[in-house]
Parts: sequence; C-alpha cells; structure tokens
Amino acid sequence: MAQHLASIANLPLNTVEKLQKLIQAPSVTPSDAGTLSWLATRLHELGFEILLHEEVHGVKNLVAKRCFSTGPNFAFAGHVDVVPANDKGWLASPFSGDVIDGCIIGRGAADMKGGIAAMLSATEQMCAHDFQYQGTFYWLLTSDEEGEAEYGSKRIAQFLTEQNIALDACLVGEPTSDKTVGDTIKNGRRGALSGRVQINGKAGHVAYPENTVNAAHIAGEIVAALTQLVWWKDEAGSKTHLQVTGITVPNIVDNLVPSECEITFNIRYSHAYRSHAVCELVESVLEKWQNHLAFVWERPCEPYYTGANEQNCFLSLTEKAIYQATGQYPTLSTSGGTSDGRFFASSCTQVIECGVRNHTIHQVNEHVPICDLQMIEEIYLNVLKEFFVA
Amino acid sequence: MAQHLASIANLPLNTVEKLQKLIQAPSVTPSDAGTLSWLATRLHELGFEILLHEEVHGVKNLVAKRCFSTGPNFAFAGHVDVVPANDKGWLASPFSGDVIDGCIIGRGAADMKGGIAAMLSATEQMCAHDFQYQGTFYWLLTSDEEGEAEYGSKRIAQFLTEQNIALDACLVGEPTSDKTVGDTIKNGRRGALSGRVQINGKAGHVAYPENTVNAAHIAGEIVAALTQLVWWKDEAGSKTHLQVTGITVPNIVDNLVPSECEITFNIRYSHAYRSHAVCELVESVLEKWQNHLAFVWERPCEPYYTGANEQNCFLSLTEKAIYQATGQYPTLSTSGGTSDGRFFASSCTQVIECGVRNHTIHQVNEHVPICDLQMIEEIYLNVLKEFFVA
Repeated sequence: MAQHLASIANLPLNTVEKLQKLIQAPSVTPSDAGTLSWLATRLHELGFEILLHEEVHGVKNLVAKRCFSTGPNFAFAGHVDVVPANDKGWLASPFSGDVIDGCIIGRGAADMKGGIAAMLSATEQMCAHDFQYQGTFYWLLTSDEEGEAEYGSKRIAQFLTEQNIALDACLVGEPTSDKTVGDTIKNGRRGALSGRVQINGKAGHVAYPENTVNAAHIAGEIVAALTQLVWWKDEAGSKTHLQVTGITVPNIVDNLVPSECEITFNIRYSHAYRSHAVCELVESVLEKWQNHLAFVWERPCEPYYTGANEQNCFLSLTEKAIYQATGQYPTLSTSGGTSDGRFFASSCTQVIECGVRNHTIHQVNEHVPICDLQMIEEIYLNVLKEFFVA
Repeated sequence: MAQHLASIANLPLNTVEKLQKLIQAPSVTPSDAGTLSWLATRLHELGFEILLHEEVHGVKNLVAKRCFSTGPNFAFAGHVDVVPANDKGWLASPFSGDVIDGCIIGRGAADMKGGIAAMLSATEQMCAHDFQYQGTFYWLLTSDEEGEAEYGSKRIAQFLTEQNIALDACLVGEPTSDKTVGDTIKNGRRGALSGRVQINGKAGHVAYPENTVNAAHIAGEIVAALTQLVWWKDEAGSKTHLQVTGITVPNIVDNLVPSECEITFNIRYSHAYRSHAVCELVESVLEKWQNHLAFVWERPCEPYYTGANEQNCFLSLTEKAIYQATGQYPTLSTSGGTSDGRFFASSCTQVIECGVRNHTIHQVNEHVPICDLQMIEEIYLNVLKEFFVA
C-alpha cells in the first residue's frame, strides 16, 4: 500500500518502500524478475550511464557508471537474485514485503535486497548534495550469485577488464553483520573446492570376502583420512574445513560386497592457501588408494583478502565510516561461504563486504529490522562521502 | 532329445536325463515350475507317501516319507529353485540342459538340480534292491532357498515338529565340493546377520560446520570401527567377517553438510558365536554414537555345527561313504553362505551338506560334468546303504 501511494504521488520511494518493491519481484536465481530494469531506470535518473545490461543463459547483469571527475574508481556490487521460498511457516508471503513488528519480512530482505535498497538510497542522497566529488562511481549487479555464478559477476569482472576499468575499491552489500549492524565486515573470503572420488573395488558374495575388494570399506578409510587432514597454514579467524557431502554405494542386497562407491566433499580454505596447495595436500592423502580411485576437482573458488596495509586503505575507510555511524569499529572476518567479492578482488582492487545482519538469511521468515536498514544506509553514505569527497 | 526318447519308451530316466528335465523347468525363486509335482510322482512310484505338498506365498514345499521299519530317521533335503539367468554369454540356453564337452550346462546344474537328480537316482537304486532296511526315509524339498527362505525349509522344519518327526540325520545336496567331487563337505554353516544403521546428524551450510553434525563423517568412523572389530572366538576353518554392504547419504548439493546417512552391513559368523553374542559386540561398538543412531538387526540366520563326537555319528558315516566312492576323505568346512541346513540342524539332528563342485554356481555357463554327477550319485547311494541297511 505504501509503495502504491508513493507511485501515485510520483515521489521517490524511501528505503523501506524500495526494499518492498524489490521483495515483491520474485527474483529466484537466475531470474531478476524485472528488478535490474527498475534499478537501471533509477540509476539513469541519478545521472548514471548504463554500460552493460545483458542477459546471458538466463542471467541478467547490469553495469552503471557515473563519472564525477578524474580520480579513483569505486563500485557498489551485489545481486538481486534470491534462494527459493514457499509459504510454509512464513508469517507473511515471502514475496509480499510486509512489515511486522518493525521488520520487513521477505525472501531476500537480508540477502541482499535490503543492501541494494540502502545502497540506492545512499546513492540518491550523495547525488542530491552539491559537493565537489572526484572519481567514478560504478554499480555492478547480477541475478546469479546464489546459483552457479558462471554467468554473473564473473562476466561483469571480465567486462570491466575488457573496458580497461580498474576498480580501486569495491563494496559488496552482502549481509555480514552478526549481532548489530556494522559489527562485522568481511575483508576476505575463504576459497572453496569440491572433490568427487569414484572408488572401484571388486564385487562378490559377502561369504567370500577374500575374493573381493569392498568399496564401502575403502570409503570408510578415505572419509576418515580426509576428515583428519591437518591444515597447518590456517591463521586466526580463517580456518579451513573439509566436509564430506555425500557417500553413495549403489547396493541394495545384503549378500553382495559392493564394488563401487562415490564420495563427494567440499573444502572451505583459508586465504593462507592457494587452491593448488589444497589440491596437492588432498591428492597426497588419496594416493594410498590410487589403484582403486578416479578423482576429479569441481567448482573451484579462489579466496581473496584485503589487508590493512594497502595504500589508500579502503579497509580503514570502511572502518571509519562504520565508526561514524555506530560508534564501534567492526570485527574483520573471512569466514562463511563464498561470495562474488572474489571476482572483483585483485592486487589493485580492494574488496570489502559490509551489510545487514545475516541471522535469518536463506531461512523461513527472513527479515530485516527497519532500524537496521537505516543504519546500513548511513554507513553506505559515509563510505561514499569518504571515498568521493575531494 | 534323450529325455523325449525315454518318455516314449516309458523307461525310467537316467540321472543325466533327470537333471536335464529339471533344468528345462525354469524354476526361478520362488517358482518350482512344476518340478515338485514331477518329483512327488517319482517318489510316490518308489513307495513314498506324500505328507505335505503345499503352496504358501508362492513358495512350494514337498515332504515325502517311506517307512521301512522302526529305526532312525534320515532325510535328503534340498531346493528346486534357481537364481535368475539371461542368455547373455551362455554357450547354450540356461534352461536347455544341453550337454557340451561331457558337461550338462544350465542354471541350477550345480546348485542344486544336479544334487536332486543324483539323490533321486540313488533313491531309485536303493528301493530297487531287496535289502532289509530299517528306519524311515524322508525327502524334504522347497522352491525358496535362493530367496528370503521365509516360507521354505523353515516351514518344512515346523511341519516336521508339528508331526512329531525328529530327524536323526539330514543330508543336504548343496554343491560343497571344491576341486573334485567329495573333497569337501559342510558339517556346519556360519551364521548370518544383517544390520541397518540410521545416522541422524544436523544439516547446515558447509561454511559453518561448527553448527552442524556431519552424518557422513560419523559414517566414516562407524565403517572404520565395524571393519576393525576383532572376532577372537573364531576357530580354524570358521572365520567371522563383517562386510559393509551399503552407505547412502541422500545429498546432491556440495554446500550442504548432510544430516542423514544409512549404513547396511552383513556379518557371517563362526559357529563359535551365537547371534546374541555377535549383536552385543556390534552394539557395544555403536554405543559411542548412540545419540545419533537408530539401529536394527535384520534377517538373522543361526549357525549350525555337526561335530564328530555325536553318537552314531552321521559325519563319520558320510566320510566313510565318500571314501568308498572316491578313495579320499573329505575336508570339513563351515565356510560359505548360509543354507537351509540351519533349519533342520538341532541337538538331535545331525546335518551334513554334500554335493557336486560349486565353482560355477550362480554364474554364466553353470554346469556339472556328467562324471561328477555319477560320482555324487554313488556317494549318496553309499550314504543310504550305510544308514538304512540293518
């Protein structure tokens, strides 16, 4: 209703209304459900030039640019897609954006349409002021962060390279906060790697095991060996974990020694490792069973890390922006899942992820308190001012 | 063709023809494909009374009896059912009973229609003689030994109990020989037990393993613990083995810590154990994970054992019968799969399994050499004479 009235009055939407509008578009990966067109129009109204608005394999990507003057390049980055939701257990339809007890409820409220709404309001406020800004401001959005991410931010990063656009700093509006908004930011993300082990033994009757090679027994040994791996390079706050995600022995009779087994596992590894070092370590463990194995790596995601010793440190700038809004400095973290930050991070691009609390993301009744939304908007505006004001 | 001519001439079939006739009936478990009616008719012609000829849940059972005089009770026991076969790789149709290179080829040739044909010929020969026999002669046949065996020999044993028939000795015509006919007999069988473990952990994102309980990791530990069990009661020639037969983690995505896993396993255990001791040992190992487990035992088969220290020892009698035919005493064994012998064995019933070579059973081109068939028939006839001649 609020959104409807605002439309009639032709007034700009406030941040709550923006978020409601975004939630009401059921942009389950890879659909953008029209959100990128709407955002492109808003950014265009704010003086942004649309450099890229494409659809590739059903994924939509948007790159917008506003150049103030010569100077450093900054980008807001994020995704409009959400994970699926059905109505079961929700206090309001997951695609209604209803306000209950001062919170906006809906799929994507925290991950990360809330961030996008706040980034847009902060951008509006910045553009409404008449300060002398220097540098160029980019918006980088995709509709495939929750999925395979093959045609999303990875392509946007390629596009920037092709256009010779080198970002100095990038703020990804993912929900990173823990107990209060701004208390935690990600200055890096762990890498991720999946592995698939095919074990080939020798079948036979259980009564004559001496003539068999039991693939399930080898599986037990491999699972034990993988889970006992020691990740000695790990640093404080950036731990490596290997999780076995599947074991399948395709056998349904109880008198047959199984000859085949598949094990899948996933590793989230500290930025202290590069992927090849992780691969070498795991492969050295599996070598013992090499006569019975076929093994492949899948879906590698390299880690990234933005340290405090960079020149013109974007990390310090963000910490300061948060302190101005909240009175607290954030905890730095590299934990959690992967994010699109990895596609933009490089030796010349500092990436920080900073957003609302993540305690309800991907869950039933995902929500964001309106006061949290206002706080993150204030933080984003502080970042923009710190970065662009001459 | 040979069988056809014999029918025309109304002559009794020889042992090869009997086996061919049995093979040509595709009695895949639980079907008897008419074989039990045919055998009942043959036994009736030999003076046997049909005590039971029933069909229960598709399973056919036959009990026949010929009483010579007061004296001990002896039974031939066996099954007419066979495991499935398609034509792939066979030198002749698996249900033709063709003779190739002096061997009768066909599904069941060795397991155990060959044994039944030889038992029938031996019975004919015995009945054709005019010796003074003492005791009572039973035939016990089922069409479900290869399957669940729930309605087969188990029911026959119940029937005998109901009729107050206590067998003193039972010869099961299963294929027990290794290199030459009569070189190995089973004077017992290991027990069998299957177990099913349901692991219940706690699901969650692989990036936050501290909030999860990975069922696949528990599975790895359990498989390792089960396969490392020490069976200290085992005796020479009767080893206990535990084989994991299945592991299933129903998980297809690589970013989810799996919360559920099912492990199935099968134990073949020495007669030195009773099932409750096996259960206690395994359960004591699983106790460590009891908060995450649901566990059930399935399909228990108790072991049996016929020692040489029994009164009027049937084991010695069989060894002597074999020596008379082959010039060699057999090796005693309790290895291999379960058999129906367990249903008939008791403190008063001595069970011996003795039959042709088992090197081709359940395989493509299962076969039995005609000379082997003649040898086992001679052994069976020697057993009958030793048992029944006053």
